[in-house]
Amino acid sequence: MSDQPSAADEIMDGVYRALRAHGYADVTMQDIADECSKSKSLLHYHYDTKEDLLVAFLDYVITDSEARIRAHADDPPAERLAGFVGWFVFEADAADREAFHIALLELRTQGPFNERIREQLVRSDRLLRGTVADILESGIETGVFREVDVDETAALVVATLDGARTRQITLTGSADGVDADSDGDAGTDADTPTGKGDAAADGLPEPTYTRRVAEATLQRIVEPLLAAGVEPPSLEEGIAAMTRDDETE
Amino acid sequence: MSDQPSAADEIMDGVYRALRAHGYADVTMQDIADECSKSKSLLHYHYDTKEDLLVAFLDYVITDSEARIRAHADDPPAERLAGFVGWFVFEADAADREAFHIALLELRTQGPFNERIREQLVRSDRLLRGTVADILESGIETGVFREVDVDETAALVVATLDGARTRQITLTGSADGVDADSDGDAGTDADTPTGKGDAAADGLPEPTYTRRVAEATLQRIVEPLLAAGVEPPSLEEGIAAMTRDDETE
Repeated sequence: MSDQPSAADEIMDGVYRALRAHGYADVTMQDIADECSKSKSLLHYHYDTKEDLLVAFLDYVITDSEARIRAHADDPPAERLAGFVGWFVFEADAADREAFHIALLELRTQGPFNERIREQLVRSDRLLRGTVADILESGIETGVFREVDVDETAALVVATLDGARTRQITLTGSADGVDADSDGDAGTDADTPTGKGDAAADGLPEPTYTRRVAEATLQRIVEPLLAAGVEPPSLEEGIAAMTRDDETE
Repeated sequence: MSDQPSAADEIMDGVYRALRAHGYADVTMQDIADECSKSKSLLHYHYDTKEDLLVAFLDYVITDSEARIRAHADDPPAERLAGFVGWFVFEADAADREAFHIALLELRTQGPFNERIREQLVRSDRLLRGTVADILESGIETGVFREVDVDETAALVVATLDGARTRQITLTGSADGVDADSDGDAGTDADTPTGKGDAAADGLPEPTYTRRVAEATLQRIVEPLLAAGVEPPSLEEGIAAMTRDDETE
């Protein structure tokens, strides 16, 4: 964020916070107005309907992802791929990010029924798979990766990371999410012992689902693609590279 | 299904059809009653609330999955694993199954906020990961698989297949799903030529996302686990084994 955020940035930030607090199905234009300190009529001046605003928000999020991916376009290919994998890792205490991704998952369930939402989802899918394919192609060119089916590998990697994220966010209880529903401020769960920490008790993978699957993705899917003698990239460095510039995703 | 389905089976079949037609958020007790030709008051006699009925339905679906998995418990391990992978493959024309899984995905987004739903999701996750771990353990015992981290492999395989399914069902336009939404709120693209057939035009993986990722899963994740000399299992035979006894999943 620059020092002087534009009105559009402020509105999109309001959508982000309102989605986290209320979820996709329940969020209202008023909630969004409240979260960005704008009037509801100003929002309606720019966006006729809640759908218009949410489609604009998806566009904003994907455009942001494009920029973040572009910012790493010149990193070495193996490190870039580890960064992509690390981007999907959620730690157990990432309550805000989980709440946001639950709202996004709700939005995604509208894909089959809403062409404008689906267009954005297809665009996001192209970006994600295209990024992995692009990383692999440039790595094959420079001799870092063996010759592999880049499109198949891209579909495999994206499905795997998306699946781990979906499982992590849907399987962990989020008293935070529930609390956040009432007043937009999650907090009380921090001092109950039965929140996210339950993952182990539930038999969920420890460390988090996303971290465990990200590690397995690097070892089982990425390492076999490396040319002889190439050092396997580090998940930790991948996570650090992608979170360095922005905390929220 | 036996010749004489029980009232409970009939109700669960009604929930299945009503979820497919209306989705999770919109489905009503009346819709379910209509789909199973029972009265709404009979449904309420057995299930106080829609939530009670949907939790019972999740329990029913998972119990059914347990039985189907058990039915294959004595198959050879590599074939069993291919059957598990093949179970997640949707062809592009599987509109009913896609509509059902979209409704399930909606239900899954309630996991963080609803403990009873989350309990069922955690049970399903345990079943899926436990099945893969069990297959791997028995295969390691009989020398079909190499010694591997069975829990990590199980988390990886389940995340991968779940992710492919989620991407396939959310990224493809479902004119069928729209038609089924009988209150007509979203009917507009039913007669456009841009329904499911668009997968290729949208740049989605062809064959279907789930088939492509299932093939990659067998080749990239399962084959490296096989002991020397063991024949890689066939995805086609895996799909056939799991769909033989039941069409609906």
